[in-house]
Amino acid sequence: MHALWVWAHPHASSLNGRLQEVGRNALEAAGWTVDEIDLYREGFNPLLVERGEADVRRHQERLRAADLLVVQFPLWWYSVPAILKGWIDRVFESGFAFDVPDPETGKPLKYGKGGLVGKRALTVVTAGDRAATLGPRGISGHIEDVLWPLLHGTFWYTGMDPLRPHLITDADTVDPQVMARIEGDLSVRLEGVMTEPRIAYRPMIEEHYDHTIKLHDSVAPGKDGLSAHLEG
Amino acid sequence: MHALWVWAHPHASSLNGRLQEVGRNALEAAGWTVDEIDLYREGFNPLLVERGEADVRRHQERLRAADLLVVQFPLWWYSVPAILKGWIDRVFESGFAFDVPDPETGKPLKYGKGGLVGKRALTVVTAGDRAATLGPRGISGHIEDVLWPLLHGTFWYTGMDPLRPHLITDADTVDPQVMARIEGDLSVRLEGVMTEPRIAYRPMIEEHYDHTIKLHDSVAPGKDGLSAHLEG
Repeated sequence: MHALWVWAHPHASSLNGRLQEVGRNALEAAGWTVDEIDLYREGFNPLLVERGEADVRRHQERLRAADLLVVQFPLWWYSVPAILKGWIDRVFESGFAFDVPDPETGKPLKYGKGGLVGKRALTVVTAGDRAATLGPRGISGHIEDVLWPLLHGTFWYTGMDPLRPHLITDADTVDPQVMARIEGDLSVRLEGVMTEPRIAYRPMIEEHYDHTIKLHDSVAPGKDGLSAHLEG
Repeated sequence: MHALWVWAHPHASSLNGRLQEVGRNALEAAGWTVDEIDLYREGFNPLLVERGEADVRRHQERLRAADLLVVQFPLWWYSVPAILKGWIDRVFESGFAFDVPDPETGKPLKYGKGGLVGKRALTVVTAGDRAATLGPRGISGHIEDVLWPLLHGTFWYTGMDPLRPHLITDADTVDPQVMARIEGDLSVRLEGVMTEPRIAYRPMIEEHYDHTIKLHDSVAPGKDGLSAHLEG
């Protein structure tokens, strides 16, 4: 299997720098090949201006080759750092990641289908928040709701299987003992990364959604939160 | 009154370019002074590396002077364009926008309090989606949930009063008649911008949140969506 590990942190000596080393080592020890994009060290230009620039083509080829995309970042303002948003803005182009027509109907495929179908997507996220604040009913919002634009609006939209975020909280106060646990947890998580269930977002089919592409009244009746879009 | 209008679109001749003209004109006709930051034309550097750089200081002074912050952008991957995320990553610094200590307790103030208290914040957002898909139970998520990281995690976190997003859907197919309606709607919205109610997010006080800063079981009992954080 082959993974693309994309990460964004200004300082390679940070917790994030260490985590990507640990993660890559764990995958390689399990027989994976791993390609790495360190957006800051690469000096990636995050500004979308025109389509189809040469650096974007190369990144698309690297993503195309991957069975697993790992996206690793510190949670800044409850979202991804700008350089990582720019990687998505530029690399996830129309015709590559989305607006890929169904061979039978000619209609574009999205939400469960799309240009990146067959890949799994894992986020590895560090946050200064305490765990409860990013859990259900925590003041910062449940991490799966907070990352909805990435998990559902980007990964699921383009056909990838989004996995539950691998969240590391209290990230500003990590002592060596805690670090050992964090490293162990990440390695264990990666061992099962191809077999764990994906987040069970509903596919964009008539069983779930009406012709305006909102949920039928009979589906998750009365629910208005983002979790209404989960099956089962 | 004084407004800071920050916007992000690579092409000044776009719908977004026209909307900021219309919006600024409407505010000025109502007696406002308006400062504008056109992030693309300014060549704003979105990469956070170090703190306290000179261009950031200048942007902080411009934000400090504003009674109203307008943030205008096309919805890219259900979030802000990278250049705008970078403006937030860099300008909303610790000690300026957050981690401002309470003069009485010395504890940092956030969620309803913070460095930017007293300002209102309006998002003006264009999206290719049809209206229903960004409404309640729409497949893309309700726009107020989709923009949670900005509305709650950034504006409310730093003490600003977040307003309901001004959302323009079907933005890829705007004919002149529709454009006239869009322009009129924006002007009307801006006329009432200082008097309309803010989004009723709960402040971070013991009445709502426990010591782990999640909602008390007795508050919005049984609700797990982001709307549990709304009062009333």
